[in-house]
Amino acid sequence: MKIIPPILLLATLLIAIPTRAESDAPGVPATSNVRGADYPRILPDNRVVFRIKATEAQKVSFHVDNTYPAVRDAEGNWTATTAPQAPGFHYYWLVVDGVWVNDPSSETFYGVSKQCSGIEVPEVGVDYYSPKEVPHGEVRERRYHSKTTDAWRRIFVYTPPGYDTNQAMRFPVLYLQHGGGEDERSWVVQGRVSQIMDNLIAEGKAKPMLIVMEQGYARRPGDPEVPLRPPVGLLDKAPAAAPAEEKSAAPASAPRPAVPPEFSRMFNALDEVFIKDLIPLIDSTYRTLPDREHRAMAGLSMGGMQTFLIGLNHLDTFSAFGGFSGAGGGFGGIVFDVKTAHGGVMADASAFNQKVHVLWLGIGTVEPPRMYESVKNYHNALTTAGIKHIYYESPGTAHEWLTWRRSLHEFAPLLFQNK
Amino acid sequence: MKIIPPILLLATLLIAIPTRAESDAPGVPATSNVRGADYPRILPDNRVVFRIKATEAQKVSFHVDNTYPAVRDAEGNWTATTAPQAPGFHYYWLVVDGVWVNDPSSETFYGVSKQCSGIEVPEVGVDYYSPKEVPHGEVRERRYHSKTTDAWRRIFVYTPPGYDTNQAMRFPVLYLQHGGGEDERSWVVQGRVSQIMDNLIAEGKAKPMLIVMEQGYARRPGDPEVPLRPPVGLLDKAPAAAPAEEKSAAPASAPRPAVPPEFSRMFNALDEVFIKDLIPLIDSTYRTLPDREHRAMAGLSMGGMQTFLIGLNHLDTFSAFGGFSGAGGGFGGIVFDVKTAHGGVMADASAFNQKVHVLWLGIGTVEPPRMYESVKNYHNALTTAGIKHIYYESPGTAHEWLTWRRSLHEFAPLLFQNK
Repeated sequence: MKIIPPILLLATLLIAIPTRAESDAPGVPATSNVRGADYPRILPDNRVVFRIKATEAQKVSFHVDNTYPAVRDAEGNWTATTAPQAPGFHYYWLVVDGVWVNDPSSETFYGVSKQCSGIEVPEVGVDYYSPKEVPHGEVRERRYHSKTTDAWRRIFVYTPPGYDTNQAMRFPVLYLQHGGGEDERSWVVQGRVSQIMDNLIAEGKAKPMLIVMEQGYARRPGDPEVPLRPPVGLLDKAPAAAPAEEKSAAPASAPRPAVPPEFSRMFNALDEVFIKDLIPLIDSTYRTLPDREHRAMAGLSMGGMQTFLIGLNHLDTFSAFGGFSGAGGGFGGIVFDVKTAHGGVMADASAFNQKVHVLWLGIGTVEPPRMYESVKNYHNALTTAGIKHIYYESPGTAHEWLTWRRSLHEFAPLLFQNK
Repeated sequence: MKIIPPILLLATLLIAIPTRAESDAPGVPATSNVRGADYPRILPDNRVVFRIKATEAQKVSFHVDNTYPAVRDAEGNWTATTAPQAPGFHYYWLVVDGVWVNDPSSETFYGVSKQCSGIEVPEVGVDYYSPKEVPHGEVRERRYHSKTTDAWRRIFVYTPPGYDTNQAMRFPVLYLQHGGGEDERSWVVQGRVSQIMDNLIAEGKAKPMLIVMEQGYARRPGDPEVPLRPPVGLLDKAPAAAPAEEKSAAPASAPRPAVPPEFSRMFNALDEVFIKDLIPLIDSTYRTLPDREHRAMAGLSMGGMQTFLIGLNHLDTFSAFGGFSGAGGGFGGIVFDVKTAHGGVMADASAFNQKVHVLWLGIGTVEPPRMYESVKNYHNALTTAGIKHIYYESPGTAHEWLTWRRSLHEFAPLLFQNK
């Protein structure tokens, strides 16, 4: 019995495509490219060369820090070279005849409430967020049904090296939130949480801990849909072609309204998800140290707001807090008053300082000025009020992921010391 | 001391965008949409309505099973309605003035060696791949450095419910491979491996097992780059605008060449990764039952080829095998001869039947005819040769994920019984 085996049919289809030759174009393919893609390429001075074949398009550009019109060659390849880019991770867009889409040559990353192209620009001499030959933890994906929202939620949980083998050991927990327009995947993918933590733990700089990453959106049954907003910094360079209703209609000088009800509702629902659903799930599923001394909360941008709202609302649950490019005074009023802010928990500075082991603020020096100044002013206000805290500035980084990788790298070593 | 707290700056930027009203358009948003996207919408008869705003584009279409030209309205919204779609998961593309890109309204999925839009079309009355109120396992992401390839690799490991709590229990392992053009993420995301397994285990239909998902590409240092090919079925409907070298140059009637060396090299390297790097890592990291009786291998399309090549090459390591829309006769020659195929391991049918506990072939009835026939012919050849095996046809499904979800759902319950 002789037949043609299916493997050869497959082989017939799979072959005859020559192995792609290494490109002799200048620079190197970005590490954020999909497998086998020669472009985008990073030049030695961190300019980026984007390219796409689009024979029928009238106009092609790429948007990263700015919009770069691309030039067509005779074969229909459109190429654009950017100005030197800051190191770290940047979202970017391909614009084809006015339509903002992803570049098929890059991996995609959930940001601005959509999947976006992203590019990783190398940071010379820095390897704390790269995988190294050290013991590795895991990131675990888990789904659970929330009673608060009556819906399925997905979380990611970083477990440190040794979690599985040291069965007698229990671990502290950091709850770490993404920003608006991103989700529970963002710290894992864009943030490189496991590489940062594996390396810090291997160097003995951070205590082994669990890190729980939830989504920052929650809706009780019957409530209107939750608002989905891009991170503030991204709003500043949001795609021009994005639907008009996605842009903020409130100029900076507009009267500051009270907290809009859809946000109050969402944050209240999330507070309940955390306290009634998530933390009990984590403490009953993992070998945690289930008390306030061993529980911290941090987040970036909107996640920083949530940290200060939810975390400081539950000082019996959390004892350490981090706001990365977003912290805040709470939703109580227009101005910050240490006596009344956060429901008055800071009114007695000495008692607060005793109770809260870490209060941490971080901001990038090239974030939009009003963000930078507001975090710095908040830091000054805390100083004046005698509230013990740490203030960190990330040199030369914007409202994006290198600020937040650095923030985690600075913040995590402070947690759960002497516990 | 009164300052404007950053939270209110954030709020200023975040508010004033009205909560999106529920659409009154017909149908419902697909579950594969990004959060808050009203389109694509699924109509009751499984037609799909795609829409994008593109005021400057000259021509817009959407490609799923076929290309559907979109029609522009006065506001620049382009809308296309497809024919009724088969249930399950389909890759699709947005085509803007001839450029094949992703639809910003949908999640993206790694397929055809790129991130692609995907749409989930509901399957009425079927819930084996949906999350349910049953005990949930986890999917764990882990990175390791391979000695064979001298490079970092990422794996995903499904651990069943109870893995953490039953510390005395050890588990069998299924190694489960994706197809060409996809990667180690594909079974987790498109394949819904954890939902399928959680549900099967809860019903008592499958034994609790670990499932290890590796990437199907490997390259020893100094070897040329590995070939990256789209799954065969997708090649049949590959984007017309894809670069010419991505299309198969070999018509079905072309002389069938011997296995191209870049594939031999890649599969040999992957064989070594499995035997020398991956399996030792898994057995030393997880509570496995580290013997052939408790080790199985399966895969789809190219992963099926790899299962039959690598798995049957190591009968001392594996005792059960599954080929989902791809199986094969091995790379020994043009024709299948039971005496010589797979290095002769089937030559003594009775000895083979004794040794191999499960040999499983599956194929969708509407896969490309030459694929369907080749798997069916292989099944007939095995039958004639007296090789015990199971042959499954998935009714009405193509070379895509519903075939493979069904295949896993049929195959997993057969594994590790009476062990």
